[in-house]
Amino acid sequence: MRNIRGTICYDGSRYDGWQRQGNTENTIQGRIERMFTRMLGEEIEIQGAGRTDAGVHAKGQVFHFHTNSNLEIQKMWEEANSHLPKDMSILSMEEVPERFHSRLNATAKWYRYVIDNSDPADVFSRKYTWHVPETLDLTCMKQAAEKLLGTHDYKSFCSNKRMKKSTVRTVYDIRISEARQLPDEPGKRKIYLDFYGNGFLYNMVRILTGTLVEVGLGKRNAAEMAEILEAGNRERAGMTAPAQGLFLMRVDYE
Amino acid sequence: MRNIRGTICYDGSRYDGWQRQGNTENTIQGRIERMFTRMLGEEIEIQGAGRTDAGVHAKGQVFHFHTNSNLEIQKMWEEANSHLPKDMSILSMEEVPERFHSRLNATAKWYRYVIDNSDPADVFSRKYTWHVPETLDLTCMKQAAEKLLGTHDYKSFCSNKRMKKSTVRTVYDIRISEARQLPDEPGKRKIYLDFYGNGFLYNMVRILTGTLVEVGLGKRNAAEMAEILEAGNRERAGMTAPAQGLFLMRVDYE
Repeated sequence: MRNIRGTICYDGSRYDGWQRQGNTENTIQGRIERMFTRMLGEEIEIQGAGRTDAGVHAKGQVFHFHTNSNLEIQKMWEEANSHLPKDMSILSMEEVPERFHSRLNATAKWYRYVIDNSDPADVFSRKYTWHVPETLDLTCMKQAAEKLLGTHDYKSFCSNKRMKKSTVRTVYDIRISEARQLPDEPGKRKIYLDFYGNGFLYNMVRILTGTLVEVGLGKRNAAEMAEILEAGNRERAGMTAPAQGLFLMRVDYE
Repeated sequence: MRNIRGTICYDGSRYDGWQRQGNTENTIQGRIERMFTRMLGEEIEIQGAGRTDAGVHAKGQVFHFHTNSNLEIQKMWEEANSHLPKDMSILSMEEVPERFHSRLNATAKWYRYVIDNSDPADVFSRKYTWHVPETLDLTCMKQAAEKLLGTHDYKSFCSNKRMKKSTVRTVYDIRISEARQLPDEPGKRKIYLDFYGNGFLYNMVRILTGTLVEVGLGKRNAAEMAEILEAGNRERAGMTAPAQGLFLMRVDYE
């Protein structure tokens, strides 16, 4: 059996997230599986590296699947893209060793959260940003972000209360930056929050973002971060930032 | 009576173009007029600088209207934006001399056409670009663009066959450039076609773009441009590029 790996980008706006859920047909995983199943004439099950929530986007999600098909990989890629809806696009496909697993072998993930800090909002990015028109103190946000790095129990930043597995993760870096402004669009200010880590809990990036934005608005301070981490209580952290500003940018492997 | 000028940006995707047409309620002009009429309690009629087609966007459309209202301009602006749908946003509003007319006083307009020259397409810009995956010879396109500059009868580049007014316009410049690539998005190539002129005929920018793309694909050559202009016949020019890649960027006044 061949093992195929693909890198995919998608606009998550109209989907119920990545993961296939029983009869729910409107998931990204389900959509891709149906396409490959029809195309290759055998039941195809794909595994994704990250289970993005409803409304979350990806610029570099990775998946893999096994197949008996002999179809040449370049043809498989082209045909797959011709059958996918316009809000999904497979960026590359390659044959990988049999034991490769997109989720289990991932060593790090990069998520980007995009804030539209313009007033009024930029209409062209409204589906791909969280509009926060107030002034954000990026210096304070960066100070708070530093307190959130390292290996910690991130239970306070997890929406799943019944999480039975370990909630310990390592966050390597959180970078907060102002996106380069295009000369044609004065006054359109975007803030990137880039999260690099070995894994993220359910809603973790969105709760980290919500908490950091509250710091930027002066509602919290950097010193609170240690307390929040220690509490192990979702109630202590900030709001969950909306899904539409979040992108899974890249998945790293050894 | 006060004369108010506004600069507006809109995503034209779901509208039947700028211009109000009898009972068609789904136009941008109609939507803005209804909002001001309700807000100011008097019948408001607005005039736009450019009548963008159905599906065409704007980053700097200009309009003006007369009103008896005493409402402070900053408040009028904020309230207007709070009542507009999320795909429209007034960038600025100011009081102007009584004789200012957004269309009649315009001295130049800048339109930008955006081509997504990536393969596969960039899913996040699919509503704001024309996807042309083939290789485009930009050098040939620039040579052809140069032949289209100046003061000419652009009848060959006008979709309106019953146009009774003059079809002579002056195109000051057509700039073809590759958009700066973002480091996070390798392989995503966008081409800008920027048109500067004293005015443009119905569909003129889209037909100019379609013709220049045919040059870029090797289906036409730069030398043909003079013949096309001379013919005064729509059949001689290239295809009409789709609406969704076009933006009215700026309107200039004295």
